[in-house]
Amino acid sequence: MRTQVAIVGAGPAGMLLSHLLHLQGIESIVLERRSREYVQQRVRAGVLEQGTVDVLREAGVSERLDRQGHPHHGVNVQFDGERLRIPLSELTEGRSITVYGQQEVVKDLADRRERDGGRVHYEASDVSIEGPDTEQPLVRFTANDGTNHEIRCDFVVGCDGFHGVSRKTIPETVRTDYERVYPFGWLGILAEVPPSSEELIYSNHVNGFALQSLRSQELSRMYLQCDPDDSIENWSDERIWAELQTRLGTPGWELREGPIIDKSISALRSFVTEPMSYGRLFLAGDSAHIVPPTGAKGLNLAVADVARLAQAMTDFYSGNGTTGLDTYSEDCLRRVWRVQHFSWWMTSMTHRFDGPDAAFDRRLQRSQFDYLRTSKAAATTLAENYVGLASV
Amino acid sequence: MRTQVAIVGAGPAGMLLSHLLHLQGIESIVLERRSREYVQQRVRAGVLEQGTVDVLREAGVSERLDRQGHPHHGVNVQFDGERLRIPLSELTEGRSITVYGQQEVVKDLADRRERDGGRVHYEASDVSIEGPDTEQPLVRFTANDGTNHEIRCDFVVGCDGFHGVSRKTIPETVRTDYERVYPFGWLGILAEVPPSSEELIYSNHVNGFALQSLRSQELSRMYLQCDPDDSIENWSDERIWAELQTRLGTPGWELREGPIIDKSISALRSFVTEPMSYGRLFLAGDSAHIVPPTGAKGLNLAVADVARLAQAMTDFYSGNGTTGLDTYSEDCLRRVWRVQHFSWWMTSMTHRFDGPDAAFDRRLQRSQFDYLRTSKAAATTLAENYVGLASV
Repeated sequence: MRTQVAIVGAGPAGMLLSHLLHLQGIESIVLERRSREYVQQRVRAGVLEQGTVDVLREAGVSERLDRQGHPHHGVNVQFDGERLRIPLSELTEGRSITVYGQQEVVKDLADRRERDGGRVHYEASDVSIEGPDTEQPLVRFTANDGTNHEIRCDFVVGCDGFHGVSRKTIPETVRTDYERVYPFGWLGILAEVPPSSEELIYSNHVNGFALQSLRSQELSRMYLQCDPDDSIENWSDERIWAELQTRLGTPGWELREGPIIDKSISALRSFVTEPMSYGRLFLAGDSAHIVPPTGAKGLNLAVADVARLAQAMTDFYSGNGTTGLDTYSEDCLRRVWRVQHFSWWMTSMTHRFDGPDAAFDRRLQRSQFDYLRTSKAAATTLAENYVGLASV
Repeated sequence: MRTQVAIVGAGPAGMLLSHLLHLQGIESIVLERRSREYVQQRVRAGVLEQGTVDVLREAGVSERLDRQGHPHHGVNVQFDGERLRIPLSELTEGRSITVYGQQEVVKDLADRRERDGGRVHYEASDVSIEGPDTEQPLVRFTANDGTNHEIRCDFVVGCDGFHGVSRKTIPETVRTDYERVYPFGWLGILAEVPPSSEELIYSNHVNGFALQSLRSQELSRMYLQCDPDDSIENWSDERIWAELQTRLGTPGWELREGPIIDKSISALRSFVTEPMSYGRLFLAGDSAHIVPPTGAKGLNLAVADVARLAQAMTDFYSGNGTTGLDTYSEDCLRRVWRVQHFSWWMTSMTHRFDGPDAAFDRRLQRSQFDYLRTSKAAATTLAENYVGLASV
């Protein structure tokens, strides 16, 4: 096979890139290890920044998002039962976030690529990338019928997540990995109950962090800080609800309960690899960086990466030079680190930390919360990062 | 002896309190362990918040401060040689800081108390406080002539610093201490050379933190992050200047060198005791809280404490009740924790940290610096804390 851009991974990054390139008349082939059903059903983040919505709208794939997404103009932060609303739009000249599941974004993109005749190989295995530092890299894979193939291309883009093959193709002598693993995990649930709060609630309770979020008007998404090595078997539905009631409770407010249809525990991690490119291989999204979910940034960073990369490739193919490609890594990393910092900050402010400085640190968290309540500048730093900074 | 308020400690907190009480016709006696010369010569902080200057001005003790103090309308933050000026006054509706040595403040207050006939016992030893939870506490001490005395009073105020007797008089069952010790110290120097920068420079260099400050137009005050257990003998003047040049250097700027007339190493610590009162005993300044010097807040917090306490005692003696005294601790602690948080934040942003997350953390520091450069809200949070928040 021959194409212009080989894309590894059919998650939001890979599918959006393939679509953006198609709009510019650039051909691509997407390879995905999992089945289409799996990719479109896996539960992930659900908060889209203003800039992410703008990209999807300009790309003509926001028809369902515009209909079913829930714009939010505020977000709540809570400390020891005291709730504070941060008026996002008021503090950011009208910008907002939109709640719309990541899997819905993937579904919209996959449907659109299908209608446009996009080439996507699901259940592709044994993907390998050869000659990323040459002008004609080669991607080998085994298709779901067992046949072996190779794709000769101009560029390879790794959108294959943290565990994917793309990052590992960049020699370790070239790459620097930055990592922090947090001493806690998140227990996440999906429950068939209308959300108890229209807007998200990030709560710091002495028992630990809790988050009230939502997927739709009928589906609540909630999280509890827990031991990262804890087993989900230790968490009966009764225990989960009791703990959510305790950590999210505040006078005059009621947390509605309902059937839990999904529950799982995941670790929290911050990770960045530098640089995000090597010859003709480019990394985008989770293959290059992981943020703790507290800032709701994973999907948004991926979209920012591929929007930048699509523009750089458009410039290249229309004879406008390689500047965009040459500075892709550096340009992306500025935003990546801003978002890493914000995600770390949101995590630090809202979680329970144990250890020798725990009592001191909790007082600092309280003071940070009080500062958000009393300083417009402080509340604005949260708001402008949460809706997404336009300038980085 | 008999007085209304016995004050332990003749540093800035104790002397200002004694003066403020005098202005309201309230009698006090001040006990100080050291000699007057020692207290007035010990080199301490030199950055006065706007609110601190306002208090001194209203109290009529700013004549020399107004003449010799240096108002600063900006402060510099530097990362890897890149310097950023934070326009303090622009971002805080005209507020500013004033550079004026703490020992000068103490001298001005001591001179004024002397003129007003204030009773101050220097070189008082064996100070003890009895019955702080009764209506008539007793303070015993040995005067510098070896005679033993006792003061019967309505209130005792502990302005005797971190190592003083006052805090320890509060039973441990009543008190909670919060502490964090940092894994580094500051090597501070005084040098007879005009400051190389009109405004302060807080620099984060890969070798560690450095600070360019000043005491006057002829006297520079500078600091280097170092091992807290390092010996000053390891730091020749040559080594100090070389390291300052490296850490503060930036293209087109020159650090002037001159004779070093004082050098010492001190540890960095964050400390708060709660509550700040016990019966008729009140703590103010360093006896209740220590901040790392990065935010230049120690003296300013002490002034905020005693201004509040003087008002509360004035209310009490003029028959306006005990509300101010009853809420003294709680009211002070809000500001104390705000300032602890800011001082911790300034320290975290500007110092070198070692350990497993060091490389990741340094990238976060870089991102924090870039954010200050690009976000008005972020720069405002630094500015409004640095000049001092009026609302807490």
